[in-house]
Amino acid sequence: MERITAKYYIETPYALEKAAQVLAGEQSSGTFVAVPGETEELKARFAARVEKITPLESVTQPAIPGATAKDGLYHRAIIEVSWSIENFGYNLPVLVSTLQGNLYEITQFTGLKLMDIDLPPSYGEHFIGPRFGIAGSRKSTGVEDRPLIGTIIKPSIGMSPQQTAQLVKTLAEAGIDFIKDDELLSSAANSKFEDRVDAIMHVINAHADKTGKKVMYAFNLSDEVDSMLARYDYIVKAGGTCAMISINSVGLAGTKKICDQGQLVIHGHRNGWGMINRHPLLGIEFPAYQKLWRLAGVDQLHVNGIQNKFWESDDSVVRSMEACLTPLFKGETPIPVVSSGQWGGQAFETYRRTGTTDLLYMAGGGIMAHPDGPGGGVVALQQAWEGAVNGLTLQDAAKQYPEFAKSVTKFGSK
Amino acid sequence: MERITAKYYIETPYALEKAAQVLAGEQSSGTFVAVPGETEELKARFAARVEKITPLESVTQPAIPGATAKDGLYHRAIIEVSWSIENFGYNLPVLVSTLQGNLYEITQFTGLKLMDIDLPPSYGEHFIGPRFGIAGSRKSTGVEDRPLIGTIIKPSIGMSPQQTAQLVKTLAEAGIDFIKDDELLSSAANSKFEDRVDAIMHVINAHADKTGKKVMYAFNLSDEVDSMLARYDYIVKAGGTCAMISINSVGLAGTKKICDQGQLVIHGHRNGWGMINRHPLLGIEFPAYQKLWRLAGVDQLHVNGIQNKFWESDDSVVRSMEACLTPLFKGETPIPVVSSGQWGGQAFETYRRTGTTDLLYMAGGGIMAHPDGPGGGVVALQQAWEGAVNGLTLQDAAKQYPEFAKSVTKFGSK
Repeated sequence: MERITAKYYIETPYALEKAAQVLAGEQSSGTFVAVPGETEELKARFAARVEKITPLESVTQPAIPGATAKDGLYHRAIIEVSWSIENFGYNLPVLVSTLQGNLYEITQFTGLKLMDIDLPPSYGEHFIGPRFGIAGSRKSTGVEDRPLIGTIIKPSIGMSPQQTAQLVKTLAEAGIDFIKDDELLSSAANSKFEDRVDAIMHVINAHADKTGKKVMYAFNLSDEVDSMLARYDYIVKAGGTCAMISINSVGLAGTKKICDQGQLVIHGHRNGWGMINRHPLLGIEFPAYQKLWRLAGVDQLHVNGIQNKFWESDDSVVRSMEACLTPLFKGETPIPVVSSGQWGGQAFETYRRTGTTDLLYMAGGGIMAHPDGPGGGVVALQQAWEGAVNGLTLQDAAKQYPEFAKSVTKFGSK
Repeated sequence: MERITAKYYIETPYALEKAAQVLAGEQSSGTFVAVPGETEELKARFAARVEKITPLESVTQPAIPGATAKDGLYHRAIIEVSWSIENFGYNLPVLVSTLQGNLYEITQFTGLKLMDIDLPPSYGEHFIGPRFGIAGSRKSTGVEDRPLIGTIIKPSIGMSPQQTAQLVKTLAEAGIDFIKDDELLSSAANSKFEDRVDAIMHVINAHADKTGKKVMYAFNLSDEVDSMLARYDYIVKAGGTCAMISINSVGLAGTKKICDQGQLVIHGHRNGWGMINRHPLLGIEFPAYQKLWRLAGVDQLHVNGIQNKFWESDDSVVRSMEACLTPLFKGETPIPVVSSGQWGGQAFETYRRTGTTDLLYMAGGGIMAHPDGPGGGVVALQQAWEGAVNGLTLQDAAKQYPEFAKSVTKFGSK
């Protein structure tokens, strides 16, 4: 019978084997009391199994509150625990409750982070995964050999649909591939969702009629299920190609319901991620996280960016991009969404470390505040990536490309 | 215009006022670039506002990774930030993305926890809240003047529907008020959801026909939206009165969709809670958390228990119970679900600290492993609460009640 294996980074004042067994017991049939008719075979069938324990260092201060070490030492390790899929079948929320449920409450751990999940082949048969991903995002925008260049409507909130549409027009004419609502805006008092769709799709459709290029706009769909379904249809009818979901805020069931509609590219915004990831020994790491959302069907996934304005390290961003780009079953591969303080200067390091152009590269000020205006900003980003792919350094690219040179002058000290 | 105010516990190497402004800016219109036609009035309408800063101690070690303090000091404070409801209206996921979104990524913070939320009156008009709560749970089970006594089917997973139903029969005859599936079980290879509903409701309905008392059984509904809706109807048709949702695993949109069906009491299991709460300076505290799930309509909410087997302190459990029991708008008040290592001995301290019997008191081994069997276990729990309410000490209650005395002998050293 197929099994799912989860890898955890743990810290415990107990013997590693004992702590691992507590986790396996808490999260399966380990707390068995005798029940008439219950056999050892049945226990073995549903019990979680500790597969591997790789000891790491011991420390003298616990990472998070929990049991106190009698000898003052807290032991770290990577442990692998497996469950039969007979326990939960293809039920994603129950899978999450099994891999990420009450185990975070266990006092025997002073640190616990889910690092990765190994899913069995039948999951690839059951879950369609992303319908569009990289291939669908490229096809829809007509971008073949370079990253998709995108931007976020700023100010996040406060502009009317007409003002937003005017900005979209400017950006479309500047050659942008992708634009998104900010996650703070879905339907505000002065920017009703449907009004915004009308105003923006009018601009995008007119631009597509004229140029053949349809800019992808991710309307923030995040809401209750019925509202999301109605607005999804509204986007489809208006000729839109994409919707954004704040995946943590909406949750797994609501997000999958939307992905399953199958007509729009789903842009997965991971806001709230820091809450479950920022501590090194609590929560979940991106390689595990992104698998769950790929099973749900998300096509585009935020991964932060190299030299970002937030707290995350470049190493972590690179790992996240690699995780997204690793094929998983038959579904399309999701496109990593690179953003946060990007202006083109980071293209070189991003390409050097990942060797890919399969990404959606998002810049805000880097486009809007370019000395030549948004048109110059978009061209500069395309040039930065062309230079990076051709092996140029940032300095060489600045010599070769005038628009990018102006970006370097303006943003290069940031 | 109404505003929503959020209270955060923060830590920052920056001046408190500056850090608070970064949060307000990141989470609203603070990153404004000039847009034609945009007025100061419009900015003021949608900008988040720092309402209050209450400085606390400074420390020399950051709680979580972030910016480094030049002077080696990290300053802690409680800050209050408010947003106009014009920003998000009555959209719960966008509210969550505003109060709990990218702010956890801000490098200027080395600690950030959402402590509480102050919701405006119109939220009480828009959101129905829990349909059943304490009153509905009491009415459905016929329990008036004492806590509802409940238990969890153990082993968590591995029993057939027939074995489970047999156990339910034993428990019903023992006088139990409430039984729940474990969160690890929804539809397992040897316990299909519908088969389990059939077998269990057959027992519960027969017992109700005979005695007039219908035991409330929380079937674990957690799954994708369509499956949850279909199984919800299945429970209703079978005469069931309750369904369980692992609220973190299913998410806000999916959970609200189920609560909105309005026919079953919704038992909200918070497994995964430790991931977002266990660190003292990261995530969310229960007073804020429970408000969101009450807006979604959850009727019963897990709060852990006094002297629990997990890591959480009694103080935290008491705060959570009080939060649940504080009225919020016109919706029913959710019933706090007290569990984890409970056997009756904790009734005294629980009542001493909360002064309420409006709770669902869950015991596993405390019922099943009672020397007189489950019947003795249920009676012992009722006695413990009767004793606690009458002002007896545990020792006095043990003298007065023979079944409870046996519990003390068996579990009292635990």
